[in-house]
Amino acid sequence: MTYCVGLCLDQGLVMASDSRTNAGVDYISSFSKLHVFQPAPDRLFVLLAAGSLATTQDVLNRIRRDLDYAENARAQGLQPGVSLLTANYLFEAAAYIGQLMVAVQNDYGPALRQAGVSPEATLILGGQIAGQPHGLFLIYPQGNFISATRETPYLQIGENKFGKPVLDRFANQELSLEHGARLCLVSLDGTARSNLTVAPPFEVAIYPRDSLALSHRLKFLADSPELVELSRSWEQSLARGFRELPRFAWEDSSSPA
Amino acid sequence: MTYCVGLCLDQGLVMASDSRTNAGVDYISSFSKLHVFQPAPDRLFVLLAAGSLATTQDVLNRIRRDLDYAENARAQGLQPGVSLLTANYLFEAAAYIGQLMVAVQNDYGPALRQAGVSPEATLILGGQIAGQPHGLFLIYPQGNFISATRETPYLQIGENKFGKPVLDRFANQELSLEHGARLCLVSLDGTARSNLTVAPPFEVAIYPRDSLALSHRLKFLADSPELVELSRSWEQSLARGFRELPRFAWEDSSSPA
Repeated sequence: MTYCVGLCLDQGLVMASDSRTNAGVDYISSFSKLHVFQPAPDRLFVLLAAGSLATTQDVLNRIRRDLDYAENARAQGLQPGVSLLTANYLFEAAAYIGQLMVAVQNDYGPALRQAGVSPEATLILGGQIAGQPHGLFLIYPQGNFISATRETPYLQIGENKFGKPVLDRFANQELSLEHGARLCLVSLDGTARSNLTVAPPFEVAIYPRDSLALSHRLKFLADSPELVELSRSWEQSLARGFRELPRFAWEDSSSPA
Repeated sequence: MTYCVGLCLDQGLVMASDSRTNAGVDYISSFSKLHVFQPAPDRLFVLLAAGSLATTQDVLNRIRRDLDYAENARAQGLQPGVSLLTANYLFEAAAYIGQLMVAVQNDYGPALRQAGVSPEATLILGGQIAGQPHGLFLIYPQGNFISATRETPYLQIGENKFGKPVLDRFANQELSLEHGARLCLVSLDGTARSNLTVAPPFEVAIYPRDSLALSHRLKFLADSPELVELSRSWEQSLARGFRELPRFAWEDSSSPA
């Protein structure tokens, strides 16, 4: 499994993922699920991937191939085909990637389904094209997509339930990018505690709006001091909060924690 | 949907449930899912129910009928059939209730499945029979069951993922019954925020071991002051914990929350 989360904030984007990949419970490995594309200075895209690793890797392969073809075509003075370079709006990039997802699943889905395996994958696309607002999309296995909104500034893919309550409490568009990154890490950390198929390294990309460049791309190993410290701080705050919950009417108010 | 949780602690049992029942999203109502049986002074049972309401209600009907039959049989000097009165061990009560679940599903399952509806239900059984330790069982739709253990003193049924992280952090057998009740309420409260199909009233039963009687049976409406205060206290602690998370290395340590 996988857990990825993105925040679309007034100040920009925060996108985060775990790195655990498993084929069954006895074949567990680590793959990055956060991918950055900057095919031209006027555009930046970040993809988070959940679901079939073969499908998401093939989508990435095709994105890169289409960019190569586009560059070759331009070098020869030819009209380039559709790629991340031709999108004029972020939603066009989402639609293009959705089409690649459907194409990959059409190629391998029949054989996979016969073997009882799902070819499905889900992606989060964040980014900005110069002159357009920054944005965040969730691309479904069927190629359609939704975007984050002011009311719900976060999008999740993969094992999303464990980490949702903290997002429901604190995710709002006014958060700073750094608070957004901490929120994503807390959501990831809680999920990893409750589900073995979600685990560090955690990766975080921070994109300040209109900068067309990531300000930070972070990778936290399980034993990285920053992650350990954040996890311990959160745990201690929760433990204190739990101890300080109001007592029931019948209890001695000084009852021990 | 539904969310129920039980804790098996050294000091006894805490069992809690929400009360929302829905048939689709446009038919939402409120039913108690916490049921207490004390068929004789030497035994007490508490059931939490999730899944098909028709199935769980019919299981309860049959439990009550079997107890009636047993009383009538005894009054007539006849050998009573199997009921909650005949169980000598708590696991025998779990097995009996599991058999009722299978019987109900066999009666209605074929017609329900033709209509695309699941007859399945899942139960948590907690209680004690005099001379035996108190215990907590999760009874599956197939009639088999598992019990809570020292390592994992909690059992959940229904919409269980949202409320699991807080249990993974704080559930341990040394908790007092009151802290256990607060933990269940925090787990329920967080779940209700993230999932519309889980909602107050929340019900909580507290059973001190070897007492063979509930010490408290609580019902919290959405606007009951104790629940509002607990929810607010927890929210404030989380918000403070979130504000106090350690800053990233590149941040001014005084950066605003």
